[in-house]
Amino acid sequence: MNSTIDRLRKQIGTDRVVTDQSDIQPWLSDWRGLYHGAALALIEPRTTAEVAEVVRIARETGTPLVPQGGNTSMVGGATPDSSGTALILSLRRLNTIRRIDRDARMAVVEAGVILQTFHEAAEAAGLRFPLTLGARGSATIGGLISTNAGGTQVLRFGTMRGLVAGVEAVLPDGQIYDGLTALKKDNRGYDLTQLLIGAEGTLGVVTAATLRLVPAASETASAWIGVASPHRALDLLRSMEATSGAAIESFEIIPAHDLELVLEHIPGTRRPVATPSAWHVLIDYVGHDATARLTAMIEDAAGRGLIEDATIGANGAQAAAFWRIRDSISEAERAAGPTLAHDIAVAVDAMPEFIESAGATVEARFPGVTVSAFGHLGDGNVHFHVNAPKGTDAATWRSNPGAAISTLVYDLVTQAGGSISAEHGIGQMKLDAFARTGGTARLAALRAIKQGLDPHGLFNPGKLIPPLAPATGAP
Amino acid sequence: MNSTIDRLRKQIGTDRVVTDQSDIQPWLSDWRGLYHGAALALIEPRTTAEVAEVVRIARETGTPLVPQGGNTSMVGGATPDSSGTALILSLRRLNTIRRIDRDARMAVVEAGVILQTFHEAAEAAGLRFPLTLGARGSATIGGLISTNAGGTQVLRFGTMRGLVAGVEAVLPDGQIYDGLTALKKDNRGYDLTQLLIGAEGTLGVVTAATLRLVPAASETASAWIGVASPHRALDLLRSMEATSGAAIESFEIIPAHDLELVLEHIPGTRRPVATPSAWHVLIDYVGHDATARLTAMIEDAAGRGLIEDATIGANGAQAAAFWRIRDSISEAERAAGPTLAHDIAVAVDAMPEFIESAGATVEARFPGVTVSAFGHLGDGNVHFHVNAPKGTDAATWRSNPGAAISTLVYDLVTQAGGSISAEHGIGQMKLDAFARTGGTARLAALRAIKQGLDPHGLFNPGKLIPPLAPATGAP
Repeated sequence: MNSTIDRLRKQIGTDRVVTDQSDIQPWLSDWRGLYHGAALALIEPRTTAEVAEVVRIARETGTPLVPQGGNTSMVGGATPDSSGTALILSLRRLNTIRRIDRDARMAVVEAGVILQTFHEAAEAAGLRFPLTLGARGSATIGGLISTNAGGTQVLRFGTMRGLVAGVEAVLPDGQIYDGLTALKKDNRGYDLTQLLIGAEGTLGVVTAATLRLVPAASETASAWIGVASPHRALDLLRSMEATSGAAIESFEIIPAHDLELVLEHIPGTRRPVATPSAWHVLIDYVGHDATARLTAMIEDAAGRGLIEDATIGANGAQAAAFWRIRDSISEAERAAGPTLAHDIAVAVDAMPEFIESAGATVEARFPGVTVSAFGHLGDGNVHFHVNAPKGTDAATWRSNPGAAISTLVYDLVTQAGGSISAEHGIGQMKLDAFARTGGTARLAALRAIKQGLDPHGLFNPGKLIPPLAPATGAP
Repeated sequence: MNSTIDRLRKQIGTDRVVTDQSDIQPWLSDWRGLYHGAALALIEPRTTAEVAEVVRIARETGTPLVPQGGNTSMVGGATPDSSGTALILSLRRLNTIRRIDRDARMAVVEAGVILQTFHEAAEAAGLRFPLTLGARGSATIGGLISTNAGGTQVLRFGTMRGLVAGVEAVLPDGQIYDGLTALKKDNRGYDLTQLLIGAEGTLGVVTAATLRLVPAASETASAWIGVASPHRALDLLRSMEATSGAAIESFEIIPAHDLELVLEHIPGTRRPVATPSAWHVLIDYVGHDATARLTAMIEDAAGRGLIEDATIGANGAQAAAFWRIRDSISEAERAAGPTLAHDIAVAVDAMPEFIESAGATVEARFPGVTVSAFGHLGDGNVHFHVNAPKGTDAATWRSNPGAAISTLVYDLVTQAGGSISAEHGIGQMKLDAFARTGGTARLAALRAIKQGLDPHGLFNPGKLIPPLAPATGAP
């Protein structure tokens, strides 16, 4: 092992190879504290060539690599196992915005650039990068690509998959793949960029990407709307889309249960509308004359009985207050007691029925729990949370009945033709569920691709690909 | 071999296994007559389960499979080799449109459905499928997916890659992968749908797909515009995009050389505008008040000196006449003499400069030839044709100096960071050029993926993946 460290130090510099365990410590656990691992060292290359050197040495010494960006994985995807044999390959020092091309609306950005930093750079160029999420202050471009991140603007602009025009990556054989030139058409075989998006670092390391930008938002208006049910919320979305085209950028649903938890547990929050409703919708409209147009659409929807109450954020502070409620749901739930998070997707039109029927099934099977499905209704993706009865002991509840609850939720999603991971990925958390629900054809194909590209299994081992023997011990 | 045929007959029916060589004959050559092969039999399964049976028998007997749709490949991608050991796996009988969902704007379509048939079905449902190309009367959905087809509406709607929401496929291990449920978010590992798009049948057989539809066109207006250069044409496109958003669906450029060839060789064509220009642009504007808006944009462009002359198709017949000129270019060139076709791409902003500099280089190096670059300027994709001097003998010219000319063109494209195959694929025609220009990282990754998924190399052997020893004999 020492020879591995020595070689790394010689090739990329002593200061780029961190072996002091107290310095490595913060990167050995995921941010929610669910996973803990160990590592031989933390490697911090500054260039793509240095990443390739690291990969070459890892290959020659048979050393596993765990790529890591902002360490904000929701599924333990960037935490090494407990063996201590792996290197954490941090991309955080590879953090240059190489180029922003205003005319072509493209940027070439290295993997370690933090999302918020890139937002600010795009804004300074009179453009914007239309993907955002709660962890934007820590999450890196490389991690967002490797997990095909989503967030709250997917409705209009899609996930990272739609925003990446090309990648540069170091492949498991140590070669640098340069796919940064943005070609609108390119039919030279399998699309390696698409293959690396969402591969969770198991097929190589993304070192940079060409990203699409869009014009700066002309004007934004936000609304908080009370509706009777998820069905009415989807009717509202369809009605608004028919008149506004692509101007609706966010369409989030929030059940009354979560609104009440936020009001109870998050200081400084207040009820947006007076009328109590079973469900709420938070909308961002972006475009010319946003406030007037959104107001007109809401009045039209009210006239047709689609909504129960509504208010429009008349200034930035009001809109920020709406979004603070939305973004505080998980924190409020945690303050109230143990909760199980499930990031799931079904076809958009099937989601209202799924929320109601699956929610009823779970609540009937596990008396006392409260199902809270909130988030991206327009994407067919909600965070299907199951909150424990009041006063439950967290330590035991998460495994029993927690594991059985999650199994039920994932089975219901799979029966509905949906996905057990809409935007968070598989990581290590969902390996068991993926092994059970993924289907033999898909799992065999994933294993075959992994075997072809990373035959020694050195890239992020123990993530994404369920082992052939059943995995155990997922929290 | 007889046992293979016997087993196939037993499993999927005698009438689905064609061994009479005169019946097979039409499917043994590509439509341009450049490639000729032989086959053990032509297999015509009617269901996905039957395709899986064929794959199972092929695996067990080690029999190569050549998937085939409408047999309209431009690169010999569907023609078997001359050994006669392969089965042609025709998808043409798998031709049911399983479902069109108007609300979700999605259709589930089997691989053998012909593009034009699907256009008509979408139209009958009040929608449209926004991808079209010259071979629409023969090309099948499966072939369009497997080649990531483009065409003349890519500017707005993208290639097949952007229109496929999911696929059903029989993978090389014989398992059926069902990815037909359209999920807007799904992060369960490598995206198999994206991997199969453009894989040219080398990683399995696409049997059906879920395809996105768009609203029927409200109103279409077409214009024929004379411009001084490809640079001015791109300026015109950028100017129109800034005011019209996504309403410009087609933006094709045509050099004067090709217009004159069409007028000379294609009966019934006539000059659209009186003023001679070095270059021409053909535009389709689709949207509300199309004729008035397109007229206003053209007047604005004229006022700023971007254009030399223009006419708007005041009725469908005039627009059809413009498109007839565009669609007749290849035929007119062939009538005039031998021509070498190169389907190439560079970054959109780099294309005007590439057309001029690469054209000058080729014409200087090979005196007497005429370079004609026409097509999809807005996609950074032109058909870079090199026409032989008048009176050249076709048989010898295509190989000498033809091969050297193509080598030069592909090297120039590669130096410009572009693609030697924008929309036609690699097939067997471009194997040598791909081996030379593809880059070791990309080629190694493609081979590794192929090896992982199709370890016995039974799926469309001799296509897309250059052999490790240099290939020879491409025409």
